[in-house]
Amino acid sequence: MPHSHLREVTDALLQRATRVRLACFDVDGTLTDGGLFLDAEGREGKTFHVQDGLGLVLLRRSGIEVLLVTARSGQVVEHRARELGIGVHQGVKDKLALVTALCAERGLALDQVMFMGDDLADLTTLRQVGLAVVPGNVHAWVAPAAHWRTRAGGGHGAAREACDLLLAAQGLAGKLRQEGAA
Amino acid sequence: MPHSHLREVTDALLQRATRVRLACFDVDGTLTDGGLFLDAEGREGKTFHVQDGLGLVLLRRSGIEVLLVTARSGQVVEHRARELGIGVHQGVKDKLALVTALCAERGLALDQVMFMGDDLADLTTLRQVGLAVVPGNVHAWVAPAAHWRTRAGGGHGAAREACDLLLAAQGLAGKLRQEGAA
Amino acid sequence: MPHSHLREVTDALLQRATRVRLACFDVDGTLTDGGLFLDAEGREGKTFHVQDGLGLVLLRRSGIEVLLVTARSGQVVEHRARELGIGVHQGVKDKLALVTALCAERGLALDQVMFMGDDLADLTTLRQVGLAVVPGNVHAWVAPAAHWRTRAGGGHGAAREACDLLLAAQGLAGKLRQEGAA
Amino acid sequence: MPHSHLREVTDALLQRATRVRLACFDVDGTLTDGGLFLDAEGREGKTFHVQDGLGLVLLRRSGIEVLLVTARSGQVVEHRARELGIGVHQGVKDKLALVTALCAERGLALDQVMFMGDDLADLTTLRQVGLAVVPGNVHAWVAPAAHWRTRAGGGHGAAREACDLLLAAQGLAGKLRQEGAA
Repeated sequence: MPHSHLREVTDALLQRATRVRLACFDVDGTLTDGGLFLDAEGREGKTFHVQDGLGLVLLRRSGIEVLLVTARSGQVVEHRARELGIGVHQGVKDKLALVTALCAERGLALDQVMFMGDDLADLTTLRQVGLAVVPGNVHAWVAPAAHWRTRAGGGHGAAREACDLLLAAQGLAGKLRQEGAA
Repeated sequence: MPHSHLREVTDALLQRATRVRLACFDVDGTLTDGGLFLDAEGREGKTFHVQDGLGLVLLRRSGIEVLLVTARSGQVVEHRARELGIGVHQGVKDKLALVTALCAERGLALDQVMFMGDDLADLTTLRQVGLAVVPGNVHAWVAPAAHWRTRAGGGHGAAREACDLLLAAQGLAGKLRQEGAA
Repeated sequence: MPHSHLREVTDALLQRATRVRLACFDVDGTLTDGGLFLDAEGREGKTFHVQDGLGLVLLRRSGIEVLLVTARSGQVVEHRARELGIGVHQGVKDKLALVTALCAERGLALDQVMFMGDDLADLTTLRQVGLAVVPGNVHAWVAPAAHWRTRAGGGHGAAREACDLLLAAQGLAGKLRQEGAA
Repeated sequence: MPHSHLREVTDALLQRATRVRLACFDVDGTLTDGGLFLDAEGREGKTFHVQDGLGLVLLRRSGIEVLLVTARSGQVVEHRARELGIGVHQGVKDKLALVTALCAERGLALDQVMFMGDDLADLTTLRQVGLAVVPGNVHAWVAPAAHWRTRAGGGHGAAREACDLLLAAQGLAGKLRQEGAA
């Protein structure tokens, strides 16, 4: 099985994943465990996860566009996006409006979008996209909007599970499991 | 049910929550997991939680005053309070005296106050307020003073649960679950 | 019961705790979870726990001398010790020799010492002192030397459990549970 | 038993461990929990574990060469390696090619190498070395390549377990358990 660690992956879910051309990830609580580190000067730090990073890079290499979409703003996320070679939209007040506009620019339908987020700011977007994923630590009022909830929590490999699902749906899991990837 | 993730929410607890006009939160161990990061220069850092932050903002927007009350002092907490648009009292040796004075200034009774804290410095206040909440990681000698103990530990969404309880009691949970919030 | 959260506290253990006049704590893995944060300039940071801090202060106020004893060296630990008003010995290669010398200076016997540590560098000291405590995350080869193993791991309240045991043995738990402390 | 906390240690595994002369460790996810801390200036920080550090030093003292091997690059890892007195290879795109070259330089066979890693970049190396170890948090697609999976996750003592296995196989566990080590 190409998706051994991916729980409750049904055929319907794989079909949703097969259509995805644009993968959008919320940042805090999704690519991190929700922790906002503040130092004495009020400068923020965030802790990302190395396994998520490899997943996002593999997704990008497979031809799926990867974007970070967050309501907050700061340099930390810019640095992480640059390191991974992916795009980022910060200070986004209305995520659904942004995702809809991104689709229009690219000639994509919303059902070709995967969105992953953990809280109320992600709720309306999760309800509209083709593949709505939430991390294990999702807020209880948001969870019902998801097609799939990962086993891991945000910042502990949750995003990697979403990447692996997409990679498996694109038929790439077998090659990765055989040859590895760097 | 508007409070699916809120454990053991009885009618008596909801009644307490309905009266609350002022919500006070201890910081270390309540809004954080108790971790005090120190760098080589002795500068402190703290890790807050993004889901707590949204809860505190929603509480403030619903018309409930939100205050941070802590015995320690430092710039980190000032920065977090400013970011969330809420008040802060640091270096508080006697929390009950402060809360009592705040009530007098506002014309509130103590039973219109929610206080959330995790350790012995919070004990006498927890015993006097209308709604005493403790995080999952509360010290064992403090737990008996609480009306409610959250499922999550401090810094991992405990404060958000307290916010959700108040929002549910004010009749706002349904709207949030339907429309989301940013 | 004055020691509700203290597991497996026997009368023999309380007797050991009652004799203690000097309480020594290893730092990394005992007052922290063992995490050594390094930034890009090689500067170290450590994360202490707020509940441990209150315990150490209460111990000191009760008249028991509190010392940090660590094989590593750095400014971080100095800052933490100063904040708590306790002593510190860093760069200690032979902990048993140090503790023995400290006892000689103070006219104490080794059975009036509590030592808490988590790894092989603490082993010979743990075997000689009157009360040997290890945190939940103790290395498996060290655990057999302990009179008591705390429930919590280092950096998550393990040291506070040791403090509470001593405070309970000194007859102070009842007062703390009734009046709190700051 | 000299390896009480080492799970499922078979004779075959001990035989593999007995042959090891070179021990290579991936860094992120193996010596850390995978967390990549980024501050507002984009500077990276990592959190290592104190018990792992002692294990690596004991391994080195026992005459086994210890190397860190990582695809990423940065000053943080240099600092950690220097502190422990061990070697480091960063920016390694092809880990198997590096390990093979290191063996040739030293006149070692690949079955005298232990390699520990957690993700797809480690996969081909794990398949070729004499002792392939993965941390508890290993990616599911990598786990089948391992001879042994540690109980602890990366950054929480996983590397120490690998060190302890090697030390036990070299007949040093008894002495360490009796005399301790600093």
